[in-house]
Amino acid sequence: MNILVVGSVAYDTVKTPFGQAEDVLGGSASYFSVAASFFTSVRLVAAVGEDFRAEDRAVLERRKIDLSGLCTEKGKTFRWSGKYGYNLNEAHTLVTALNVFEHFQPRLPDSYRDSELVFLANIDPDLQRQVLEQVKDPKLVALDTMNFWIDSKLDSLRRTLSKINLLMINDGEARQLSGEVNLVRTAQRIFEWGPSTLVVKRGEYGVLMFTREATFAAPAYPLESVLDPTGAGDSFAGGFMGYLANSGNFGESSIRQAIIMGSVMASFNVEAFSLDRLSKLSYREIEDRYRAMKRLTHFEDL
Amino acid sequence: MNILVVGSVAYDTVKTPFGQAEDVLGGSASYFSVAASFFTSVRLVAAVGEDFRAEDRAVLERRKIDLSGLCTEKGKTFRWSGKYGYNLNEAHTLVTALNVFEHFQPRLPDSYRDSELVFLANIDPDLQRQVLEQVKDPKLVALDTMNFWIDSKLDSLRRTLSKINLLMINDGEARQLSGEVNLVRTAQRIFEWGPSTLVVKRGEYGVLMFTREATFAAPAYPLESVLDPTGAGDSFAGGFMGYLANSGNFGESSIRQAIIMGSVMASFNVEAFSLDRLSKLSYREIEDRYRAMKRLTHFEDL
Repeated sequence: MNILVVGSVAYDTVKTPFGQAEDVLGGSASYFSVAASFFTSVRLVAAVGEDFRAEDRAVLERRKIDLSGLCTEKGKTFRWSGKYGYNLNEAHTLVTALNVFEHFQPRLPDSYRDSELVFLANIDPDLQRQVLEQVKDPKLVALDTMNFWIDSKLDSLRRTLSKINLLMINDGEARQLSGEVNLVRTAQRIFEWGPSTLVVKRGEYGVLMFTREATFAAPAYPLESVLDPTGAGDSFAGGFMGYLANSGNFGESSIRQAIIMGSVMASFNVEAFSLDRLSKLSYREIEDRYRAMKRLTHFEDL
Repeated sequence: MNILVVGSVAYDTVKTPFGQAEDVLGGSASYFSVAASFFTSVRLVAAVGEDFRAEDRAVLERRKIDLSGLCTEKGKTFRWSGKYGYNLNEAHTLVTALNVFEHFQPRLPDSYRDSELVFLANIDPDLQRQVLEQVKDPKLVALDTMNFWIDSKLDSLRRTLSKINLLMINDGEARQLSGEVNLVRTAQRIFEWGPSTLVVKRGEYGVLMFTREATFAAPAYPLESVLDPTGAGDSFAGGFMGYLANSGNFGESSIRQAIIMGSVMASFNVEAFSLDRLSKLSYREIEDRYRAMKRLTHFEDL
């Protein structure tokens, strides 16, 4: 199955205790689509400005990502600047310049309308819904969001949530959205609103997945060197959705494997700035780390 | 194999967002020994005051814990008072009254000297070493400590670390002790100091275990209701050491199972104040939750 992603393609300036990068390719749709591209064909919807560099487009093209939905608008590409302290779980945003994203009205090319899986990355919930309405008959729709939309557009977000299958969100934001401190109750609350699966991202602590029937926990892969956590959540989502799309099966066993694959892709992503590590991966490396995740978590029955 | 534990037997006053308890049985050695008692015979070394209640002694006796090393000293039992906010990972200490613990000089009954596993709960590293020197030929020695000793008695702590096999510690304290932000490097540093196994406790995020050969991650069991996290770390240690002692095998497979068993005991402990849940467990409940931990973490190979 194929995947449609709507989100940002951006230029990021990032500082971590381990280095920095200026005006490098980033954005949720970039991370997502490169991660997912190892498993299936990906269609991207986003806007960039006239300053978007050919070499960055080439990064996406080399991964065979369908860019017919990537519009070049008058103005500059979306820019985000942030820094991290030693607690790499928390980004401190320094600058957000929406630029071409300010008036972004996602319009799907006709060739995208039969998309099977849809990932609505963290953008305005109005736009997420607008994209979804242009897809004919999606088999699975997942959504990410953030505190900004929970604070400023809760009604719209709730309306969008009623139309999706899977919510993927940070733990703090999951608690904020549900008004529940406890994550088990958070999941129960969110199921009432539409999604039947909740994936809670916990940074270096990994992921918790809830359905009505089961709970699954996956650790983050412990790395000796984490250079830049930017894009980890979207790389996770890309690995997750890519694996699901490739398997064509949304059963519990497949979802568990997809979560591990998401964790694998996120673990590679944080080893370098921008898409430097992700875009150069081999499938062999991906399989090896999946096996390492198995060794990391396996224990015998009593 | 049997286990020796040295630590505190205390009266705790605890307030959480979900309730409170006043002057209830607590202390590291209490939590540890009750948790471990489901798997093997436990010998306890600690001091209590003349106010220590017969009913609290009975809680330990009913679990067949050997109390010949529990001295009653002139004065009052050690008291700790703390509260937790909605972030149950962090205790705010309100009062610590050492009382009889202030001049505690642990002396082992002769019958304890052949102890096989030793758990040095979080007390003054001088006392931890003093206990260890009285044990003839321990097969495995584990130690817990905290920021207070890292700040105030680092040299003594390092001397004690050189004599043990396994360090069990919170993630923040592991980082503080090693001077490394990254946990993989933290482990490498700590191996240089003596221990060959590092168990990093991460509260609601579970546990990471490092040896030179392998890394193992276990999540905390997600509960719908956590009443009081006090004693979770010591209940974990009790389940962990108890399982190891019972298996008589310290190989990697056994250590992984022991970590799951520790997580199981910690998960029960936090469901109630004091030892209320732990002391009334059935072995059947323990086995069921071990199986639930398997369902929580299992995924298929690629």
